[in-house]
Amino acid sequence: MSTNTAPPADSSTDEPTETETGSESADPNSFIVEADTLQSIIGAASTLVDECKIRLNEDSLEIAAVDPANVAMIEETLDEAAFETYSMPEDTVGVNLERLKDITGMADSEDLILINLDTEKRKFNITIGSLEWTMSLLDPESIREEPEIPDFDLETDVVINSKDFNRGIKAADQVAEHATLKSDPNVEELQLVGEGDTDSVDLTLDSDDLIEIEPGDAKSIFSMDYLNSIKQGIPSKTELSMELGDEMPIKLHYTFADGNASVTYMVAPRIDSN
Amino acid sequence: MSTNTAPPADSSTDEPTETETGSESADPNSFIVEADTLQSIIGAASTLVDECKIRLNEDSLEIAAVDPANVAMIEETLDEAAFETYSMPEDTVGVNLERLKDITGMADSEDLILINLDTEKRKFNITIGSLEWTMSLLDPESIREEPEIPDFDLETDVVINSKDFNRGIKAADQVAEHATLKSDPNVEELQLVGEGDTDSVDLTLDSDDLIEIEPGDAKSIFSMDYLNSIKQGIPSKTELSMELGDEMPIKLHYTFADGNASVTYMVAPRIDSN
Amino acid sequence: MSTNTAPPADSSTDEPTETETGSESADPNSFIVEADTLQSIIGAASTLVDECKIRLNEDSLEIAAVDPANVAMIEETLDEAAFETYSMPEDTVGVNLERLKDITGMADSEDLILINLDTEKRKFNITIGSLEWTMSLLDPESIREEPEIPDFDLETDVVINSKDFNRGIKAADQVAEHATLKSDPNVEELQLVGEGDTDSVDLTLDSDDLIEIEPGDAKSIFSMDYLNSIKQGIPSKTELSMELGDEMPIKLHYTFADGNASVTYMVAPRIDSN
Repeated sequence: MSTNTAPPADSSTDEPTETETGSESADPNSFIVEADTLQSIIGAASTLVDECKIRLNEDSLEIAAVDPANVAMIEETLDEAAFETYSMPEDTVGVNLERLKDITGMADSEDLILINLDTEKRKFNITIGSLEWTMSLLDPESIREEPEIPDFDLETDVVINSKDFNRGIKAADQVAEHATLKSDPNVEELQLVGEGDTDSVDLTLDSDDLIEIEPGDAKSIFSMDYLNSIKQGIPSKTELSMELGDEMPIKLHYTFADGNASVTYMVAPRIDSN
Repeated sequence: MSTNTAPPADSSTDEPTETETGSESADPNSFIVEADTLQSIIGAASTLVDECKIRLNEDSLEIAAVDPANVAMIEETLDEAAFETYSMPEDTVGVNLERLKDITGMADSEDLILINLDTEKRKFNITIGSLEWTMSLLDPESIREEPEIPDFDLETDVVINSKDFNRGIKAADQVAEHATLKSDPNVEELQLVGEGDTDSVDLTLDSDDLIEIEPGDAKSIFSMDYLNSIKQGIPSKTELSMELGDEMPIKLHYTFADGNASVTYMVAPRIDSN
Repeated sequence: MSTNTAPPADSSTDEPTETETGSESADPNSFIVEADTLQSIIGAASTLVDECKIRLNEDSLEIAAVDPANVAMIEETLDEAAFETYSMPEDTVGVNLERLKDITGMADSEDLILINLDTEKRKFNITIGSLEWTMSLLDPESIREEPEIPDFDLETDVVINSKDFNRGIKAADQVAEHATLKSDPNVEELQLVGEGDTDSVDLTLDSDDLIEIEPGDAKSIFSMDYLNSIKQGIPSKTELSMELGDEMPIKLHYTFADGNASVTYMVAPRIDSN
């Protein structure tokens, strides 16, 4: 039913038992990672798709996905250094994200999660303390082609507290179905405007409110549906890098796990017919 | 999109920056108020109606409304002293309470909220930190006539902890569709009785349980629907003044913001056909 | 409306006023009990049935019930020592558990609840602080016959932290409709396995994870629906005793109130047709 790998952390204690797992020789087809890190990666991807491919590389794990309407994309990388141990064969697996989210959600944020890839049976054996799941993988061929986020030249660069971004999205969502993000090359400000039929909201953040800003000529309109979805995946207290252009997509980027985990979202703009 | 009034409070800090706003000369058509105070006023009115008129007087703000079935009324006053700054022209505006509740709900309780009245465009410009909303006002003519709470001679006066009142309402709601409030001129007690088809509940509070009581001859029946609605608006820890009579309406009154904000509810009795 | 028994606890304070109630002579047809204890007993029974009989004995209160599909049973006993005062005539009453749960749920966990039996009107008079309910009792004849949990010889005995049991049930429920509980006479382990169509979960607890284990030959399959219901009634931090057999029912047992309150659940196995 399940592999007999010793559980990396005891579920009945609240501390990760790193020394214990560190002293074992790592299973050749497995990794061990702090629950928090894996939950963040899974959570971010699940804001856009129900299923995705996970690329297991020699020294990293990668996810890339595009939502069914081709409006938003995500690229995520967990470098080897983000793991307690990482020893995977080069492989690509398909996963049901909702199921994986439920399972990894059983762990407390500091618990360790061990995932072993059964290359023959195409299953993940997932261990959290004394709990062991066997989760069937999906045929990666059955999952939509992975997108590649294009390398646009977006001249406006902003670094913002994710809390302020999320607050602006929440406010815009109260009154409007779309939000405009704007920058003027001569003003060190980022402006988010949501205009509804009767009411509107305006969030203007200047260089005091922002962590960094290199203003450029930018004005693009985005669907609140997508900004709202993405907001669910973004941690509440992180530095969020934004790249903006004029009627161009927005890129949102943040890292965690000491910079060894990175997430990039891209959302296509809505063409302003006015 | 929005006026360029400097935000009265920085949303990224948790303290109201009173000195900053205090040192500015106030916008002639605006007020600044602590979020908590405004949220309480809006929340209380929204228990009875979806839209209401707000009267802006020279030195106070007033709301009066009656529910669609003419059973319950509310009168609210925010005196000038309840505001950080208050400088409004005499005017009457119509507002969508749900929208105003959503917007003011974006503030933390100690944040400051700036509301500017655009007398020409008939809009509220609402500023909370770096967020600015433009909210269209409704034509006051389209909103139901404001009621005036009649000046009944209700001889039973009680002051009760709102927590005890809310608890009694919650208990009565479990078993009954109506609650009877009673007082006997010779006994220093307030009695709330809910009688259902099979079960009943009785809350009897004597002078030890009450803050004050001047008992009179009172017995009136009220619909749980209305008492329950009103309960949502009443703060959980406040002194609630009640006036009762015999088959007469009940009046409930409380103040906050150091006595500069006052709310009075009146609920009509159900005639006891027995 | 209600008996004039002095309220055993003042709802406006958070401490049970035991001295006050202790100094009174107990009402002959009543008991006083800490809310926590009564809420646990009511809550556990309500996971299986909507109505039940309560047997009032000379020195204990007992509930026994079986769910409508005859799969799960519960037996509960509150000994006299679990009460602050207990003085009931021998009687059997029928109760609406949902109503009794709502009423007792109005008390904070450390409040005292006084229940007086009106033997003539067949009502419970329930007092929590200054609140007094009158709750009609049901005709015990109208309620299903009480079951008796059979005295099987189940050779596997386990004592487990309820937290670990509840965690296993939650995990199994994510992937499967049934869970198998297993023990091998030669291994000091308890195994819970949930197998779904594609995924499975395995919780293996050894003598380090368990409080006690006397392993035997056991393998029985249970419906997740019933294990999930029962989980709602089990306190999150208690020692849970389990008895298991081979294609036999499971018995779950725990005590509280210093051992003076006891709950035993029994769940029938599903026959494995393989």
